[in-house]
Amino acid sequence: MRHVYIVGIGQLPVQKRSEQSLRQLGAQAVKIALEDARLDRVDALYAGNMLGDELQSQKHVAALIAEETGLRNIEAIQVRAAMASGSAALRIAHLAISSGEIDTAVAVGAEVMSSGDATQALAKALDAQEELPQGLTMVAQNAVVMQHYYDCFKPPRDALAQFSVNAHDNARHNPRALFKDRQFTAEDVLSSRVISAPIRLLDCSPICDGAAAVVLAAGPLARSRHRSARILASSVATDRFRLADRTDPLVLEGARQSALAAYRQAGLGPADIDLFEAHDAFTIIACLSLEAAGFAERGQGWRLAMDGSIAVDGRVPLSTMGGLKARGHPIGATALYQACELFLQLNGEAGPNQVASARTGLMQSIGGVATTVISHILAR
Amino acid sequence: MRHVYIVGIGQLPVQKRSEQSLRQLGAQAVKIALEDARLDRVDALYAGNMLGDELQSQKHVAALIAEETGLRNIEAIQVRAAMASGSAALRIAHLAISSGEIDTAVAVGAEVMSSGDATQALAKALDAQEELPQGLTMVAQNAVVMQHYYDCFKPPRDALAQFSVNAHDNARHNPRALFKDRQFTAEDVLSSRVISAPIRLLDCSPICDGAAAVVLAAGPLARSRHRSARILASSVATDRFRLADRTDPLVLEGARQSALAAYRQAGLGPADIDLFEAHDAFTIIACLSLEAAGFAERGQGWRLAMDGSIAVDGRVPLSTMGGLKARGHPIGATALYQACELFLQLNGEAGPNQVASARTGLMQSIGGVATTVISHILAR
Repeated sequence: MRHVYIVGIGQLPVQKRSEQSLRQLGAQAVKIALEDARLDRVDALYAGNMLGDELQSQKHVAALIAEETGLRNIEAIQVRAAMASGSAALRIAHLAISSGEIDTAVAVGAEVMSSGDATQALAKALDAQEELPQGLTMVAQNAVVMQHYYDCFKPPRDALAQFSVNAHDNARHNPRALFKDRQFTAEDVLSSRVISAPIRLLDCSPICDGAAAVVLAAGPLARSRHRSARILASSVATDRFRLADRTDPLVLEGARQSALAAYRQAGLGPADIDLFEAHDAFTIIACLSLEAAGFAERGQGWRLAMDGSIAVDGRVPLSTMGGLKARGHPIGATALYQACELFLQLNGEAGPNQVASARTGLMQSIGGVATTVISHILAR
Repeated sequence: MRHVYIVGIGQLPVQKRSEQSLRQLGAQAVKIALEDARLDRVDALYAGNMLGDELQSQKHVAALIAEETGLRNIEAIQVRAAMASGSAALRIAHLAISSGEIDTAVAVGAEVMSSGDATQALAKALDAQEELPQGLTMVAQNAVVMQHYYDCFKPPRDALAQFSVNAHDNARHNPRALFKDRQFTAEDVLSSRVISAPIRLLDCSPICDGAAAVVLAAGPLARSRHRSARILASSVATDRFRLADRTDPLVLEGARQSALAAYRQAGLGPADIDLFEAHDAFTIIACLSLEAAGFAERGQGWRLAMDGSIAVDGRVPLSTMGGLKARGHPIGATALYQACELFLQLNGEAGPNQVASARTGLMQSIGGVATTVISHILAR
C-alpha cells in the first residue's frame, strides 16, 4: 500500500445556472487542478456525476470530460454511489494510486442540475421498488427523520436552524460559494417556506451547477510539491435503504460505520479531528452526522450548533467554507469541493475561514438517506 | 502490487425477459459466485449497470444489490463506462485487491433491458451534444462503420456474417446462452431484416436480461482454491467520440491502445493468447476488434472468420460461449459473463466448447463506438 496525496485542486464557482455544459465544467475543473499540481497529464480520470443520464442525456460522462480536457487515450471511468458519487470517485482514485498501477490520477465531480427535473432524478437514490411507489422523495424522507428527531429528543425549536446559520456565515468568505452574499438568522430559517414539514427552505441545500477536481499522486511526487494533503483514511459503508428496516432510524449507522473504519485506518479518534466537512444536505443530516462521527452523543448533536462548537474557532468546525447548505450541493461535485476545501484548510490557505493550526480533517459524503456513506480523513 | 485472482464465478441464464428484478438478478449472481468461491462475505462489491436510471428508476444500484444479497455494511460502489460498465467494475475490483486495502471483492454486472426503451437509453453512450441531435443511435453509428469497411476493403458479401454464424454455433453448447437452441447460416444472416443498412438483425447482439459475477482475491486465498484464474493485465483506454475526429475511423484506436497496454502488462503478444472474448455487439465490431488487438492486419479481420481461425479449434477462438451475439448482451453484465467464460475455459470446464490447453485468454469490452475500451488478460 503506497501513501496517497492530493497535490493539486481545482474548483469552479457554484452557480444557480451555469452557462457552461456538464463536460465544460468538468474539464475546466480538471485543467485548474492539473495546473495547480504542475502536471500536463495524469494516468487516469475518475468522474463523479449522478444526474447526467436524465438531465444531459449522457451516460459516458468520464470519457466525455477526458475528451473535453484533451486527455487523449486516458483511463476514464465514472464512479457512482447516488449523492456520494463524488466521494466514490475520490475513493477509487485513492485505490488506483494505492495499488501502484497508477501513479497520478484526477478525481473530478461535475453536475448540472439546472436543466431539468432534478428532484425526480434525485429520488432515484431511494429504493425504486419499495419507496418510490409511495411517492417518497429525498426531502420527504429527510423530513420524516427530522420530525422523529424533534419528537424524541425535543431540542429547542431553533436548534437545527443553527446549522444553516453557521453554514451561511462561513460561506460569506468563500468566493466560490453560491450564497456568498447572504446571511441568515435562525428566525429567517424558521420563517422560510415549508418544503416538506418540518423541513423549510433554509434547512435544505440548494439545487445548483458546479464542478471540482483534485489531483492525486504517490509519495515521491507529493514530496516535490510544497503543498499537499495526505489521504490518511478512505472508507465506504452501506446501510439498509428503508428506515423501517433499521434498528434505530435516528442513528445514521452507515455514517457511524464509515467513520469508525476511517478512524481505525488513520489511528485517530474524533478528538484528533480539527475540522469536519459533513454532508449537510439538510440541517438534520448535519446534526446526525456529528453524532454518527462521534462528536456528540445520540440526540445531542444540536447542542454543538447552539454552543458555538461548530464555528470556525470552535471545537468541531463544521462546513467551514459554507458546506452543502451554503457553498452549494451540485451533487456529483460536492465531495470534490469538500476535498478542495480541506486541502486549503490543511495548507493554511482558507483565508478568513482558516481553522487555526488545522492538521487533520474529516470529510463525509452521503448517498440516499445515509444508505451509502464515504469518509476520508486528510492530513497535512 | 499484489497479484489478483478470480476464485469464484456466478452466471445466470441470459433471458429475453426475466421475471426477476434488477436487484434480484444481481444478488443471485453474487450469491452463486460467493458459494463457488467458498466465501460467506467479501470486503467490497463493485457493480456494473448502464440502464437502471431510466429503465428501473434506480441510481443506487450497488448498495441495492448489496442489500438484496444480505451483505450488510459492505463497501458498495457502482462503476460505469457506458457499455463497458461491467468491465469497469472488474477493473476497479482488480485495483482494490491490488492495492492491498481490500482482500476480497465481488465484481457484479446486472442489466434488465426488457422493461423500457433500451435503444434510446443506449444512445446516451454517444455524445449527447454533438451526435444525438442528428438522431444517431448505436446501431446507426455502427452501420456507418460497417458500410465504410465494405467500401474500403471489399470483403466477400458474407464475410462479416461468418462472425454471427460462429457465435451462434458456439452458443449451442452454452446452457446459459440466450440463443442456445438456434443455429444460422451466413445466408440466414444476409436475409434477416435490415435494422440500419447494411446492419441486419443477425449482425446485432440482442436486447436481453442477465447478471453475472466474479469473486476476486489476492494470492494466498487463491492458492487455497483448486480453481482460479490470475488477472495478468487490466487496462482502460479512451478515444474520441465522433468518428469524424478520428484519424482513421476504420481503426478502433481505443481497442488497439487498450490491447497494447494489456500485452505490455502481461509481457505477452497476440500470438500468446489462446482465446479472445471480443465485444461482438455487431459483426463489424468483432472484425475490427481482431484487427485492433493484433490478430489481423487492418482490413483483413474478416479473413479469420472465413478460414476457420475463429472457431473453437482455430488459431484465435472467438466468442467461444456464444459471445455478445448469441450468449446475449445484457449490457452491464456482459463483461462479467466474459470473465466467467474465460474462467471456465482456463480451468478446463468449458464442456464441448473447451479450447484445448487454454492457458491465456483476452477479454475486451467496448463503450460507445469504441470510445472506452477495457481489456483484461486472464491466465491459468
